[in-house]
Amino acid sequence: MEGLIMDYPLTTTTILKYGNSAFHHKKIISYLPNGTRHEYTFGDLYRRCKMLANTLTQKLGLTKGDMVGTFAWNHYQHVELYYGIPGIGAVCHTINIRLSLQQIEFIINHAEDKVVFVDASLVPILEKIASRLETVERYVIINAPENFSTTLPNIMHYDDLMDGSSEDYEWPALNENDACGMCYTSGTTGLPKGVLYSHRSTYLHAFAITSANAANMSAQDIYLLIVPQFHVMAWGAPYSGLLAGSTMILPSLHLQPEAIIRMLKDEKITKANGVPTIWLGVYEALKKNPPKEKLALQEYHVGGSALPASLIEGFDKDFGIRGVHAWGMTETSPLGTLSRLQPEHAQLNEKEKLKIRAKQGIGFPGIEMRIAKEDGSIAPRDGKSFGELQVKGAWVIRSYFKTHNRDDFTEDGWFKTGDIATIDPDGYMEITDRIKDLIKSGGEWISSVALESALMAHPKIKEAAVIGIPDETWAERPLAIIVPTDKNDKPKDQELMKLLSLNFAKYQIPEKYLFLESLPKTSVGKFDKKEMRRLFAEGKLA
Amino acid sequence: MEGLIMDYPLTTTTILKYGNSAFHHKKIISYLPNGTRHEYTFGDLYRRCKMLANTLTQKLGLTKGDMVGTFAWNHYQHVELYYGIPGIGAVCHTINIRLSLQQIEFIINHAEDKVVFVDASLVPILEKIASRLETVERYVIINAPENFSTTLPNIMHYDDLMDGSSEDYEWPALNENDACGMCYTSGTTGLPKGVLYSHRSTYLHAFAITSANAANMSAQDIYLLIVPQFHVMAWGAPYSGLLAGSTMILPSLHLQPEAIIRMLKDEKITKANGVPTIWLGVYEALKKNPPKEKLALQEYHVGGSALPASLIEGFDKDFGIRGVHAWGMTETSPLGTLSRLQPEHAQLNEKEKLKIRAKQGIGFPGIEMRIAKEDGSIAPRDGKSFGELQVKGAWVIRSYFKTHNRDDFTEDGWFKTGDIATIDPDGYMEITDRIKDLIKSGGEWISSVALESALMAHPKIKEAAVIGIPDETWAERPLAIIVPTDKNDKPKDQELMKLLSLNFAKYQIPEKYLFLESLPKTSVGKFDKKEMRRLFAEGKLA
Repeated sequence: MEGLIMDYPLTTTTILKYGNSAFHHKKIISYLPNGTRHEYTFGDLYRRCKMLANTLTQKLGLTKGDMVGTFAWNHYQHVELYYGIPGIGAVCHTINIRLSLQQIEFIINHAEDKVVFVDASLVPILEKIASRLETVERYVIINAPENFSTTLPNIMHYDDLMDGSSEDYEWPALNENDACGMCYTSGTTGLPKGVLYSHRSTYLHAFAITSANAANMSAQDIYLLIVPQFHVMAWGAPYSGLLAGSTMILPSLHLQPEAIIRMLKDEKITKANGVPTIWLGVYEALKKNPPKEKLALQEYHVGGSALPASLIEGFDKDFGIRGVHAWGMTETSPLGTLSRLQPEHAQLNEKEKLKIRAKQGIGFPGIEMRIAKEDGSIAPRDGKSFGELQVKGAWVIRSYFKTHNRDDFTEDGWFKTGDIATIDPDGYMEITDRIKDLIKSGGEWISSVALESALMAHPKIKEAAVIGIPDETWAERPLAIIVPTDKNDKPKDQELMKLLSLNFAKYQIPEKYLFLESLPKTSVGKFDKKEMRRLFAEGKLA
Repeated sequence: MEGLIMDYPLTTTTILKYGNSAFHHKKIISYLPNGTRHEYTFGDLYRRCKMLANTLTQKLGLTKGDMVGTFAWNHYQHVELYYGIPGIGAVCHTINIRLSLQQIEFIINHAEDKVVFVDASLVPILEKIASRLETVERYVIINAPENFSTTLPNIMHYDDLMDGSSEDYEWPALNENDACGMCYTSGTTGLPKGVLYSHRSTYLHAFAITSANAANMSAQDIYLLIVPQFHVMAWGAPYSGLLAGSTMILPSLHLQPEAIIRMLKDEKITKANGVPTIWLGVYEALKKNPPKEKLALQEYHVGGSALPASLIEGFDKDFGIRGVHAWGMTETSPLGTLSRLQPEHAQLNEKEKLKIRAKQGIGFPGIEMRIAKEDGSIAPRDGKSFGELQVKGAWVIRSYFKTHNRDDFTEDGWFKTGDIATIDPDGYMEITDRIKDLIKSGGEWISSVALESALMAHPKIKEAAVIGIPDETWAERPLAIIVPTDKNDKPKDQELMKLLSLNFAKYQIPEKYLFLESLPKTSVGKFDKKEMRRLFAEGKLA
């Protein structure tokens, strides 16, 4: 027997309409690439999305199911594309500008993008590969300066196109399971893979983000979206912002610590998202030049890689700003978990509290997690038993785009994340490694992530990566590769071993410490341990 | 093109599993009818719901689509029924114990309940109508005292049934559009009408409640569910609590102000829901006997009828506790809107702020609202133009159970609420009347709700209702019917007219004031204006 409830599809257009009617006067503020501050309301956004929908359908001939690429910074025009493209039933394919040229070329061809909307400042990247893009019929330039010129063929300008488009548009009825957006993984271990989000998954993910246990976004907030819109949909924040009625601040390419700090001050930002590297930079800049008045910033939401406990502690103690740890992957839309203390933790000491906050945290409603041990059995939630993290839920993929590999899923339909993790009795998940980075020494597993986090708490260490290297006796041993804060003042090996012995068993502690000026990183800024292992094998690390 | 996302139905079982895994150790605390304090965890709830599912299917022979009635207070067993019954695919029909015997009889027969779970203390009500209940095969008694006896036929005891039921149960796959629960409207103007909720609507409604703009429930909270589980699903709180990881306090029949205040103190409750009458009682008891320490209670969520601005103000000033206004109907699951101030209101004075807080507020994501004027056109959102409030959304009915009346819906599918309201430019909705209670005097509409709220702010007035009475010159004139705080110290008519003249035009102010010892109320405690008009017409009001 069916419930007698209205059919009400959860789509990005539902979100757009909601923002317009519930928070008509709330603002979207963009710091455009040329430095201009642009401000308009959710009501303006709604009006312009209807103009964009007319532009897409009438002037660009786009229709339901078409792939439309975006290659752009965070700004109001990109937000318009986030709603306008799926609003006509097409798919908004956000292309990561940080990938290699080969990857970008592969992705655009693989997705079969018909049109690409590109920021003028990013045009030089596409110019290099345009001749090899097989499906792109047209490029639409956003934020072109007066003297703009390009070798890209078939260009149009965003503003010209929008000019004169009608504000009357009847949004088509959409099935909530239809595709609305696509992102590719960075493909560190092979070709990038496409993840095709549905309207429903996008809605439910964005709404989950707003909840008080998650990013706790509301009409009280002024939210800074540092996570790029070209990278896993800015963690869904352009959708969450409208659902929560939060004022949104969009920094485009102004991502230097000083620029961010200026926005934090001028816009009285209360919450923000970003990867650890960004927050490390902001912290160091604040330390050098402490603000005269306490910032309005209450908390920053971090994901992408582990946030060192030392950074959480520093922000807390020095500036009274809370670092909140989240976890996710492109395959999970991306956010799946987030870590906040609960009243039950009140009696713990500061160090114990920090340990919980540094975990990846509790799954959101709509996400289920479990840990599969090596033998395939499900590990108990004891905070110790580890194995591969497997997830399922309302915004987790069931297949990659055009590429279904059974090995990515369990027989009972869970997605295999490739992360090694534990879950504790209170439901907090903690990632200890990527499967491919695991170190097995003398039959015992060693967590590289935990060692790195402990090393990075040392004041003389800027960055630390730990990889497994072959060893005749133990099969593998951990090797620590370190970038010192000051290359003329490296910490002593003995000192580091002593530091680690506070928290690690003897067999887990590396004997070897290599000091470099920088670490190999992937195109999206994560430690490239595959490259480190290769360089070590070839004798090139030293 | 479909998005490539897992199929993940939103069901009450999804919620139950989530509570168990994400907040396994969070507590549900029940003050049982016999005064015992019972405490267990979300993990215990999960285990016992599996036992209940086995009990329902194996011992009671219930199956998918069966109607199962509950006639019970708020306590852990009732929460088990909220998950156990829909978990097997049956429908949890919560019967309002406050309705008349005729209504209860009609409802149980109309719903075709096969089994009714009934609190021992409520058995006397059902005994009076049991002989006329046509479909009930069995009664299951909850919380029976030792010397319990009844004339109800075919009784079993909840504890006996659960004893020995297995904790192993494989939850069946459910379609999220399947029915999971049913409530009947109180039927003040006719027969009660059944509203059949789906799993999906129940999930989305409950999740919306938890958001920061709404009840703002999280793992930080200890939530007191005063709204009865027998009344519109306790506003979904038994579901929201698990999604948010809030500790839940269930008071069963301990609803006297003193009992509530004791729980607020002993359990350190942070948030609570309830109708205005309850909070008026709590306020008066706190005033008489102010607490020595500040209560942990941050805010109380109110709906069902308008919360007088004077009460909001009193709680604020005297105890630093925030009254938060919500609005909903059985037909909207029930909650649709809630009113909180936003940072943009910071520059308003206290009186203006209070005016906004006393509105019904902003719609939740998943709910759309509009105001239809008398001529059917849609009113502008100017805070002045009024008309019938129409809603649509993810938890709004598309039909009553077994009774579809086209007049309840517009041609384009919106539900007609029967409320008269305005929406202001910031999206805040305010109810000014029920359509049937509207007063039209000399061609101008008069809001009875606004007059009542202003009158109830007078210290000598306990309750005030305003109805329209026939008038030769003006067609109708408002009549104020008042219950004074002290029957020997009534306010003077002139004094009341002067008070009202501060905020109302002259034509809106009643000339006549009747003082009574009590006001006619409906079975669910709302002013029964239909009865007042009848009594007045028959010359019996004086």
